[in-house]
Amino acid sequence: MVYGNTGDESGSGVAFTRDPATGEKVFYGEFLINAQGEDVVAGVRTPEPVAQLKNYLPQAFHELEKIRQTLEKHFKDMQDFEFTIQDGKVFMLQTRNGKRTGLAAVRIAVEMEKEKLIDWMTAIRRVPADQLDQVLAPVFDRKAVQAAKCIAKGLPAGPGAAAGRMYLNAERAVAAAGKGEKVLLVRNETSPEDLRGMIAAEGILTAKGGVSSHAALVARQMGKVCVCGAAALQIDYAAKTMTVDGVTYKEGDFLSINGTAGEVYPGQIPTAASEIVQVLIEKSLDAGKSQTYQNFKKLMDWCAKVTRLQVRTNADTPEQTAHAIAFGAKGIGLCRTEHMFFEGNRIDAMREMILADTKEHRKEALAKILPYQREDFVGMFKELKGLPATIRFLDPPLHEFLPHDHVAQNDLAKKMGVPVEKLKQRVKELHEFNPMLGFRGCRLGIVYSEISEMQSRAIFEAAAEVQKAGIKVNPEVMIPLVGFKKELDLQVEVVHRIAGEVIKEKAVKLNYLVGTMIEVPRGALTADEIAQTAEFFSFGTNDLTQTCLGMSRDDSGSFLGPYQELEIVKKNPFATIDQAGVGQLIQTAVEKGNKTRPGIKLGICGEHGGDPDSVKFCHRAGLTYVSCSPFRVPVARLAAAQAVVEEKQAAKKKGK
Amino acid sequence: MVYGNTGDESGSGVAFTRDPATGEKVFYGEFLINAQGEDVVAGVRTPEPVAQLKNYLPQAFHELEKIRQTLEKHFKDMQDFEFTIQDGKVFMLQTRNGKRTGLAAVRIAVEMEKEKLIDWMTAIRRVPADQLDQVLAPVFDRKAVQAAKCIAKGLPAGPGAAAGRMYLNAERAVAAAGKGEKVLLVRNETSPEDLRGMIAAEGILTAKGGVSSHAALVARQMGKVCVCGAAALQIDYAAKTMTVDGVTYKEGDFLSINGTAGEVYPGQIPTAASEIVQVLIEKSLDAGKSQTYQNFKKLMDWCAKVTRLQVRTNADTPEQTAHAIAFGAKGIGLCRTEHMFFEGNRIDAMREMILADTKEHRKEALAKILPYQREDFVGMFKELKGLPATIRFLDPPLHEFLPHDHVAQNDLAKKMGVPVEKLKQRVKELHEFNPMLGFRGCRLGIVYSEISEMQSRAIFEAAAEVQKAGIKVNPEVMIPLVGFKKELDLQVEVVHRIAGEVIKEKAVKLNYLVGTMIEVPRGALTADEIAQTAEFFSFGTNDLTQTCLGMSRDDSGSFLGPYQELEIVKKNPFATIDQAGVGQLIQTAVEKGNKTRPGIKLGICGEHGGDPDSVKFCHRAGLTYVSCSPFRVPVARLAAAQAVVEEKQAAKKKGK
Repeated sequence: MVYGNTGDESGSGVAFTRDPATGEKVFYGEFLINAQGEDVVAGVRTPEPVAQLKNYLPQAFHELEKIRQTLEKHFKDMQDFEFTIQDGKVFMLQTRNGKRTGLAAVRIAVEMEKEKLIDWMTAIRRVPADQLDQVLAPVFDRKAVQAAKCIAKGLPAGPGAAAGRMYLNAERAVAAAGKGEKVLLVRNETSPEDLRGMIAAEGILTAKGGVSSHAALVARQMGKVCVCGAAALQIDYAAKTMTVDGVTYKEGDFLSINGTAGEVYPGQIPTAASEIVQVLIEKSLDAGKSQTYQNFKKLMDWCAKVTRLQVRTNADTPEQTAHAIAFGAKGIGLCRTEHMFFEGNRIDAMREMILADTKEHRKEALAKILPYQREDFVGMFKELKGLPATIRFLDPPLHEFLPHDHVAQNDLAKKMGVPVEKLKQRVKELHEFNPMLGFRGCRLGIVYSEISEMQSRAIFEAAAEVQKAGIKVNPEVMIPLVGFKKELDLQVEVVHRIAGEVIKEKAVKLNYLVGTMIEVPRGALTADEIAQTAEFFSFGTNDLTQTCLGMSRDDSGSFLGPYQELEIVKKNPFATIDQAGVGQLIQTAVEKGNKTRPGIKLGICGEHGGDPDSVKFCHRAGLTYVSCSPFRVPVARLAAAQAVVEEKQAAKKKGK
Repeated sequence: MVYGNTGDESGSGVAFTRDPATGEKVFYGEFLINAQGEDVVAGVRTPEPVAQLKNYLPQAFHELEKIRQTLEKHFKDMQDFEFTIQDGKVFMLQTRNGKRTGLAAVRIAVEMEKEKLIDWMTAIRRVPADQLDQVLAPVFDRKAVQAAKCIAKGLPAGPGAAAGRMYLNAERAVAAAGKGEKVLLVRNETSPEDLRGMIAAEGILTAKGGVSSHAALVARQMGKVCVCGAAALQIDYAAKTMTVDGVTYKEGDFLSINGTAGEVYPGQIPTAASEIVQVLIEKSLDAGKSQTYQNFKKLMDWCAKVTRLQVRTNADTPEQTAHAIAFGAKGIGLCRTEHMFFEGNRIDAMREMILADTKEHRKEALAKILPYQREDFVGMFKELKGLPATIRFLDPPLHEFLPHDHVAQNDLAKKMGVPVEKLKQRVKELHEFNPMLGFRGCRLGIVYSEISEMQSRAIFEAAAEVQKAGIKVNPEVMIPLVGFKKELDLQVEVVHRIAGEVIKEKAVKLNYLVGTMIEVPRGALTADEIAQTAEFFSFGTNDLTQTCLGMSRDDSGSFLGPYQELEIVKKNPFATIDQAGVGQLIQTAVEKGNKTRPGIKLGICGEHGGDPDSVKFCHRAGLTYVSCSPFRVPVARLAAAQAVVEEKQAAKKKGK
């Protein structure tokens, strides 16, 4: 046994070989003189930064510095180690790979490669893909924060910027967040009981404890903004107040914290985009001036060298498209056209269509929406500059476009000049017991083919216009919810017919594909038949999960909690693809699709497209691309690269 | 060319070699002197029965009689032929196998076998399975009909008895039926425009036309009760009245018709069960006195000789169980326990359980339901006398047990002594967007294991009681909606635990199985894993169709019509199993289940179990049994036998 509490020549500490918050190559950590290890972690006494040890025990500090370098050379990764000094003699208690923020992970990986500690493929594996989006997280607006007054400093335990109303107790924080408030959890120190409050909060601020305290560890894992051990805070739980330098803040007041710098501000400071976003999206920062961006770019460039699986984006505006392309997306994997029926005046025409009694009236109403949709597509095609765009035809049930409460129904009836009874009757007719499984997707386009006609025309007229302006266009028209080949046949006939008309009218040549979403089990099971018509498949894994598992995403909250506790499901199947069930359907469809149409283009466009485990599954299943929201594109690109590296390293291991 | 309208030595007719309504071996049909064939079919002049031809043209009649016998010897089936007599000389125009009622089909098949025209296997194939339930259709109550006065006679064109309000126009008949009225469609003659009215009606009555008129043909195909050519009726469409012998009946008045005898009665004559039901179920008629029953029995006995696929029944009362066994069911394939929570006072305890805040309170409420459920099971086990009973645990979402309108909620809150807000809050909590895919099935039993505990106890205590009374009991406990092996594991643990307790308490030995319903695609896809725990599978093809096709049965009305017209689906997938999709899942599960547990017991318990095409599919898929409603048991038995005969005859053909 060794003891760190035998006097002033003794002490205990926790240290990292690099800064786990930023990744900077500095000796980082903390210690307490005349204390045991548990005292450091407990956060009751605020420890001092490890650099200060030089002033107390220079000999021990020197030895620790040497140990730090030896450890990295040996383990080739950043280490998190505990030490005790007993009467001036250093004892190592344990060491392990250190947890780090996404920001730190990128920097450490890139710098270790530069230092030749690791090769670039290993560097790719070193960054946990699901933490990469932390580097895209907002920071404080530079001007606003310069004008603000820092009231307290603590340890920078979770990078990023967060503002919210302070709550001194986890339960109240959860309740406030439940009401839609942005919340900061402020505590003397946190314990496992505070976990739900920490999850609900934008950020965590503690008065006590260091970078190895509970708050810091948990915040790091969750990617939460966190400032620890801001000793100037005096918290009064009973009065629900926090006092700093004589100024008292009440629960519910706004605070802002900078977890990268360890700073606390009163009020709500506006946040600004991360440096990467400033360089790539806002173009307000020069690439050369941002080390963070340079590290990110290096990592993404490595990914591009190995990746087989492409990453596209789910976008339905030119702006989203531009963002995703800046992050490296290779096109649009899912353009939902729903909003194109909702925005501005369009909803009026859409409602007119829904209430129309004849096909002719429906066509008249749709004709009003056509020019708007065409403009939407023009904007996106221009941003894409020839990259493919998978455009899904109208998918949601029609009742979603009508108001459901009496007041809104009365207003609408007046506005449209129709009897309110007619409107109510139509709402009633459109009511469904299980709308997820109802009159939606291609069922709409088949029963009301004029909708598909209008959408086809909007796409091809836009394509013709953009192409005449000298920009290539590659639309991929996607028919949703297909379970029967004949459904697709009927819709494909509409698309080809309208495309033919536009090609003739505008005297252009247009490239396009027509394919389908595979999102009901029958579509996957009969993929060999469907591939006779479909030029591509895109797996709608959200709905495929709902139907394959017989589990409504919106309703699963009541049992998915117990299900995870009881380990019936290991991960939430709506976040990570259920490989044994949904994955099996995907594999069946991939196999059958390829049998009918060798090399058929295959993608996924559910939210799973931004989940690393799901992306890796898609790589192994032989898909062509995944599609995810713009800000998840880097995550998906990294996961796609990791899938290849893991494969190569596994093959190498097997070869030995 | 031959002409039947060259004078009184000429004529045209349509004839059947046996009576197509009853199957009786008589020369049946009709003719018109001095007329062309189309005049007979048009129904404008009412033709005379073919037997009368003897009086007009005895030579021709004699020749036709000889032709009739030759035709049957050659075609070995009942023939429907057209003839023309030109100046005393008989010309055959065409012959084909005649359409017949279910009643006639049975009689003809059985008698032709006796006559050695066909063998018994062919006889099995000769009865269209989906028409067999016609022989179970009601007839008039014998006493009531003897007391009633027959006001008109027509041709017996569709057997059975029907009573309802008369409507003189298809549209009004449809509207009245839509309101829940029992309707008779009464017309001078029918045309294809009347089809919807004929479908909506209990029976059809015409003033003109014979057994080959539109009304008769259509009624025969649809299995509708029909009387044709009741010439005494004087119909006034404008006044909406029918006059017979000076008495006028108004639209909406009750009439009764006997399609087996061709009789029309005023008022509503109570109907009685078919002779088969009188023999088997009511035991009010001696088997020896009913030829209909004897024919039916012969057919069922032949079926029993070849059938491999067993037929069970969906039943949840002792009465239903007894009926099904009388029809030849080999046990219960699906006992839905839902009603056991609804009946009488039980619903109060059930609601108490749903509103309880703690497991203890839920247990207390459930304890009140236990004795009732135990009694239910005792009753069924006694009827079954050792035949197996597959009992499904509670399946529907809990909100189905609470009232949804304000008045009922207020009443209930008062009755239960709870604040109405609490009740409303609970209803709100239980609301689901897609209840089909929500908190139901085993999800209930897992989150509230006390429900499964109570149901297990009710089953095993009942089993112990009945077994002690000297009657064998074979319960098969079925866990619904399983998609993950672990779900089943958790519920099976409960069943075994409670079974063990009861076995100990009651000092008995009990045989039982625990298995699962396969009704979500994931269950089928991971059947190999699930079979590690499941001792049997029962395919819940209703829900499996909903999930596999992503199609809600309750909501599919809005597009399934167009889908059938466009031939996207050939048959309604909720009536006949979609073999390419749902069937593929079943086959996968059969294969995987057998791999893990060779010879695993396999059944289906959706409504498809009574559909002949689906039954034949189940046979080919290698299932152990199908289960259907009691009155569909004979249909399923016949279809199951036909599947074997078809297989044998196909193999024989191939062998040649």
